[in-house]
Amino acid sequence: MMDKVSITENLRIFDKYWQSKIVGDLNGQNVKLAKMKGEFDWHHHKSQDELLLVIKGIMQVKFEDNDITLKEGEFFIIKRGVDHKLVADDEVHTFIIEPKSTLNTEKQLT
Amino acid sequence: MMDKVSITENLRIFDKYWQSKIVGDLNGQNVKLAKMKGEFDWHHHKSQDELLLVIKGIMQVKFEDNDITLKEGEFFIIKRGVDHKLVADDEVHTFIIEPKSTLNTEKQLT
Repeated sequence: MMDKVSITENLRIFDKYWQSKIVGDLNGQNVKLAKMKGEFDWHHHKSQDELLLVIKGIMQVKFEDNDITLKEGEFFIIKRGVDHKLVADDEVHTFIIEPKSTLNTEKQLT
Repeated sequence: MMDKVSITENLRIFDKYWQSKIVGDLNGQNVKLAKMKGEFDWHHHKSQDELLLVIKGIMQVKFEDNDITLKEGEFFIIKRGVDHKLVADDEVHTFIIEPKSTLNTEKQLT
């Protein structure tokens, strides 16, 4: 049986930005943690939605027609096919659920 | 386009225990928030995994062969088919991802 996962403990043990850590498998999706700072280029996920929850800090998600700001405790579901760009002026800690199947087919966090 | 969701704002506006609120749709799964206090009977989800993240408080998840305790910022993925019982001695706030398809076929939070 899988163990429980502490989000803060796991975020403590890695430092690099934009390198997510897989911490769970949920119905064929990866549950990931990532630290972000700076910008991650425009991209989209062709066939699946992505959930992005901010654990600590503040970030922007830019879309073609608007931007949103996510603070601690706020999440957004980026629907499949929607182009987006991630921007974090300062370090932000995130909890992400993203399909495994996008791993090898599209540019994304690795 | 969907709006962003504040977990704490949404938890503030409902009071009843064991009545989850759907706050998102992620790849055919419901993203839900729930307040729990007391016990929720033994059950399992036949064909899909469930993610249970504690936002505030502390709770137990009982399995046939062991129990785990989840504190704030800790999550557990209850794999499909695994019998479990939820116990919260005091009020606990949770973030849940659960397949929609279980809604009408199995006993669960509604």
